[in-house]
Amino acid sequence: MRRDFSVHDVRPVELREEDVRLIDQRMLPEELVYVDARDAQETAEAIRAMVVRGAPAIAMAGAFGFYLEASRHFSETPARLEEVLMDAQALLLASRPTAVNLSGALSRMMDTFRTLALREVSVDAIVRGLREEALAIQAEDEVSCRQIGEHLLTLYEEGMGVLTHCNTGGLATSRYGTALAGFYLAKERGMALRVYADETRPYLQGSRLTAWELLQAGVDVTVICDNMAATVMAQGLVRAVVVGADRIAANGDTANKIGTMGLAVLARHFGIPFYVAAPTSTIDPVTATGSGIPIETRPEDELTVIRGARIAPVGVAAYNPAFDVTPNELITAIITETGIYRGPYAFLRL
Amino acid sequence: MRRDFSVHDVRPVELREEDVRLIDQRMLPEELVYVDARDAQETAEAIRAMVVRGAPAIAMAGAFGFYLEASRHFSETPARLEEVLMDAQALLLASRPTAVNLSGALSRMMDTFRTLALREVSVDAIVRGLREEALAIQAEDEVSCRQIGEHLLTLYEEGMGVLTHCNTGGLATSRYGTALAGFYLAKERGMALRVYADETRPYLQGSRLTAWELLQAGVDVTVICDNMAATVMAQGLVRAVVVGADRIAANGDTANKIGTMGLAVLARHFGIPFYVAAPTSTIDPVTATGSGIPIETRPEDELTVIRGARIAPVGVAAYNPAFDVTPNELITAIITETGIYRGPYAFLRL
Repeated sequence: MRRDFSVHDVRPVELREEDVRLIDQRMLPEELVYVDARDAQETAEAIRAMVVRGAPAIAMAGAFGFYLEASRHFSETPARLEEVLMDAQALLLASRPTAVNLSGALSRMMDTFRTLALREVSVDAIVRGLREEALAIQAEDEVSCRQIGEHLLTLYEEGMGVLTHCNTGGLATSRYGTALAGFYLAKERGMALRVYADETRPYLQGSRLTAWELLQAGVDVTVICDNMAATVMAQGLVRAVVVGADRIAANGDTANKIGTMGLAVLARHFGIPFYVAAPTSTIDPVTATGSGIPIETRPEDELTVIRGARIAPVGVAAYNPAFDVTPNELITAIITETGIYRGPYAFLRL
Repeated sequence: MRRDFSVHDVRPVELREEDVRLIDQRMLPEELVYVDARDAQETAEAIRAMVVRGAPAIAMAGAFGFYLEASRHFSETPARLEEVLMDAQALLLASRPTAVNLSGALSRMMDTFRTLALREVSVDAIVRGLREEALAIQAEDEVSCRQIGEHLLTLYEEGMGVLTHCNTGGLATSRYGTALAGFYLAKERGMALRVYADETRPYLQGSRLTAWELLQAGVDVTVICDNMAATVMAQGLVRAVVVGADRIAANGDTANKIGTMGLAVLARHFGIPFYVAAPTSTIDPVTATGSGIPIETRPEDELTVIRGARIAPVGVAAYNPAFDVTPNELITAIITETGIYRGPYAFLRL
């Protein structure tokens, strides 16, 4: 067990010469362990198993996996490489269905391939171009996150309590995070906020990852169980809710970690603003409403076993939807790198 | 690890010759272990540590502990015995503050003592009278639970999905339970219900205890995380919510396991009835509204550690209120052994 590492020293997704190095987020905060994926297959497996999670981080990992697959086929013809990359794209896309960022990043990588291939450059140059494109996706995410944080800061006041759900920080993105970006920037500028972090069952991204990140950054953070959210709202301990997103439909309906939609209902009941923070790469203009977003159902044992210990009787049924969809009318504002948007949302026209 | 025991073979609270035998509910469903408490001190400790939990079961355990304390002082004068019992009452009452059933049972035991003492019967006869009174409290609870179940059955329809929270079954009471009583009676009569059980963090009474009880009884039960309640409502999987209560104020405001109030808000949002099932011993006519109900805050490590494994970083703050208060206006009906009551509630006039 190591406790001498900090999220600010490490990167959840790091492209190296011949692989992408991923922090195994399933083991945090108790252990810092890496998984190195060398091709599309290994990257897809790491995404599926939740070694890496968080919509922007998954997108980066996918782009790197796509590039690595190309780099392993540098001696092929462009036509053969295209076949390989179409397979890689399908494989990576199937790893997790809900977040749209992954799909967007893979399309962008494939577009880059086709653009370069049409120019009839060498396969070697194509592979270099794909590497640059994947690194650009990562770099752009960091810039976007910081801008999201700047916009979020304008919504907060000194001393305010803010509730967040799941993990949308440096572990889920390239650095500042989306919903957590405002907390990091507030800390940098000496503005005190009191953050309440839902533990976020079943995977406990809130207590394991968000609490760990914020504690290390010196942000005032208190962990609660998901079912205590109504109480902290009723007691006036929080005056805003901020969450990330895995996919935002064109009408603003937002898929995010399971539990988000219930928080939006509670926030409405208690008259508290409910904010969604995400880069525009999370907006899916092709999906008109939330009902078109595929919701992943994950294995039952994620819910009935914690760290090897059974917490439900053998043989009992469990239902484990990984995401829910918050209707646009319950969202006070959607914050992207380009600004703060309030309903009615019509992102097709952005 | 034993899996060959059934909740229907065992009693969570059983008075024996010289002690009260309690199932250690912290170890279920993996192990069936007993704790034997011989006096008021040991009983209070078992209640505080949650060996036994559930408002009616705590009340029975408290009454037995009170009697055991008396039985250990059978050679004292009535005056000295009264002092001993006043101390025992205070000790037991302090073990857990929120449920009113314990306070009511202890008052009833003390009244029985005083009535017998005034009759100038022997201390030996007083002790026998206290034993009978404590056993009567247990027997009456079983009858009440069955009657609650009969009333609940009238609210259900064949094939209906019903959501419940925490554990309000045979482990929390003398036999049928309160909110679970309707499910047991439905099963006895061949009515199929689909029960969804919130796992109920942090103590997991739903996944550990409710799922175990219902699975053994052959009831169709599916465990969900607390934060999935909004999803099963939105998807139409549940058409009613039924919960127990730890204390009901005179105006119907209801203290129950943390997470209950949020469920009531969600049920209102989705147009689903929200039922509270409890014996009249849970109604506290002396407390006018929910704001007068003391809410216990429990240790932070109940939330940050599960079965010995840390699930949050060392040093992080956690907030662990054990109960919340659901305002009467969010409660569709309160079901007691005497009937189904709909608001406005005015239990002082019952």
